[in-house]
Amino acid sequence: MSDPLSRFHAVIPAGGAGTRLWPLSRAGSPKFLHDLSGSGHTLIQDTVARLRPLVGERIFIVTGVRHAEAIRAQLPAVPAAAVLVEPTPRDSMAAIGLAAAVLEARDPDAILGSFAADHVVIDQSAFQECIREGVGLAADDHLVTIGITPTYAATGFGYVQSGRPVTGFPTALHVRQFVEKPDARQAAAYIATGEFRWNAGMFVVRAARLLDLLGRWHPQFAADLRAIAAAPERLEEMWPALPKIAIDHAVAEPAADEHAVVVVPGAFGWDDIGDFSSLAVLLPDPGRGPRVLGERDLVHALDATGLVVPGSQRTVTVLGLEDVIVVDTPDALLVTTRERAQDVKALVEHLRDHGRTDLI
Amino acid sequence: MSDPLSRFHAVIPAGGAGTRLWPLSRAGSPKFLHDLSGSGHTLIQDTVARLRPLVGERIFIVTGVRHAEAIRAQLPAVPAAAVLVEPTPRDSMAAIGLAAAVLEARDPDAILGSFAADHVVIDQSAFQECIREGVGLAADDHLVTIGITPTYAATGFGYVQSGRPVTGFPTALHVRQFVEKPDARQAAAYIATGEFRWNAGMFVVRAARLLDLLGRWHPQFAADLRAIAAAPERLEEMWPALPKIAIDHAVAEPAADEHAVVVVPGAFGWDDIGDFSSLAVLLPDPGRGPRVLGERDLVHALDATGLVVPGSQRTVTVLGLEDVIVVDTPDALLVTTRERAQDVKALVEHLRDHGRTDLI
Repeated sequence: MSDPLSRFHAVIPAGGAGTRLWPLSRAGSPKFLHDLSGSGHTLIQDTVARLRPLVGERIFIVTGVRHAEAIRAQLPAVPAAAVLVEPTPRDSMAAIGLAAAVLEARDPDAILGSFAADHVVIDQSAFQECIREGVGLAADDHLVTIGITPTYAATGFGYVQSGRPVTGFPTALHVRQFVEKPDARQAAAYIATGEFRWNAGMFVVRAARLLDLLGRWHPQFAADLRAIAAAPERLEEMWPALPKIAIDHAVAEPAADEHAVVVVPGAFGWDDIGDFSSLAVLLPDPGRGPRVLGERDLVHALDATGLVVPGSQRTVTVLGLEDVIVVDTPDALLVTTRERAQDVKALVEHLRDHGRTDLI
Repeated sequence: MSDPLSRFHAVIPAGGAGTRLWPLSRAGSPKFLHDLSGSGHTLIQDTVARLRPLVGERIFIVTGVRHAEAIRAQLPAVPAAAVLVEPTPRDSMAAIGLAAAVLEARDPDAILGSFAADHVVIDQSAFQECIREGVGLAADDHLVTIGITPTYAATGFGYVQSGRPVTGFPTALHVRQFVEKPDARQAAAYIATGEFRWNAGMFVVRAARLLDLLGRWHPQFAADLRAIAAAPERLEEMWPALPKIAIDHAVAEPAADEHAVVVVPGAFGWDDIGDFSSLAVLLPDPGRGPRVLGERDLVHALDATGLVVPGSQRTVTVLGLEDVIVVDTPDALLVTTRERAQDVKALVEHLRDHGRTDLI
């Protein structure tokens, strides 16, 4: 059989508002459309660039009506047909499942990898090495997830627990279970075992295998996706009836219970940039003063650390504050602390409650 | 002799950049041109309104070339001739002395009161009562200062120490000495004696008496001021040679050493708004959330106290910060704490050092 990598396709679900990154990220301009790593490219541009060496032109992006145009503008080299537009948001199982059904119809041996549009990876070659192993495992009909080696006892991610190694592969391990986001004590206990890794929501699997697994627990869902792939003109009609469920709950967790999932450990520097505190960690440390996402010359700080995002061409000055977060945009300013970064979500709710939907 | 109040003139020196109130106050737009009390009027407009019941039209404003136009625009009811323009800044003795010389030339019995353009007074009628007593004392040839009853052990003001009462006046006391800004321990000790009051830089005195006193320690200075008043066309030529000295050092302190100064205690709620922390105290307490100078609807705060100045029409959000100061202007943003409010001056120096004179 041919090199499985030649049958490997990347599927990039591009959704989610990133409420905790307000006012940078907005409902109309979610985080994958922004340069949050200071790379000079947006997160979705970086995601595509990272996958190119593995898949070449074999890329699908699945997104909502609202963002399709911005995505095409940011990725002129991606063919228009590669952007699958969901009529309405239906969570990750429908998004990835639609791509799987389209791929299966073209090639029953097609392998897909799903990668969120808004994650950051530091070591690109380590990432690619990991995915290559995952593709080999998928060709053997495993459902593969990537488990990120934890660098601290994170409470913002779910975890995947591994068991014995997979014979014939350099690093892969059988998955014992997926677990939800833990509290701090539980997270520390997970780390101590050495068996738990962060669930980064990356899956590599044969397209047909994914739909077959889905069909075991949600037969109508799998059948509907295959029907849409066979008759794309039915998308608008059938889409609204699809279940709104994450791929983790629909397939990965029940499959793990049946020992059908394997994990490839990844230690390539990864983050989903869940809030401004994790964004700060990803940015280069200037040695003194706050980290800056944007034009450093616009920021003047004395006795201050944290993160400043000068996003309105105005000068931002900070005096005498540790771990402060200042995000300056043309119509809204946020001042908070790294400690309260998760609660930016509550602030956005507060704005909604006060009728300021124009800002969110 | 006529009621001395009919010979009483207000002199308002309008100068000083108010560096600690950057970025609200700028070199080109000092604090007296801003509404810092939330009254809907600028500080100089409030100052003039406060003095009107005492002096009617008998007002002089002494200011620099750079601000004369803005002052005339803010005070259309003040005659153009009432705005004396200094060719260059020469500190308070020259500014008040020039007004004194002009007044003396018109009326040897004229009494003047000097009141900074950028101070805040809460209880207007108590203030007026105080000044009326001062005018009576000035008519008896005293040099009168107003001593503010301290409400806390301030280290940001100089103090005036009083001795025995002045016979024939309800509240006035003889001055023993003026003292410089104390440290915290010294300030507490001053307060404990009951003899010390804040030196608010307000003086009431016969114009001729002020110039005579000045003539004792700086004869050439007094002679030059009188020469300018006699021949106003010589202002430009003579002004640059005048000493750059504060009225406190030039006259008030040496006069106190000769027991020639009296103090009228004032308990009318006063502040010179030296920094954002004292500005915060002056603004109404909203009960919860930070105090706001400006449009309250632009500010959304959760678990936050301090001061927000929304000065650019943008929405300002603050989450999880106690005693924070956020000052938003169209071209510059300041984020600091009440504790560090005094150090805003250092931040402005930092901007100057980095060539950002456009912002200061």
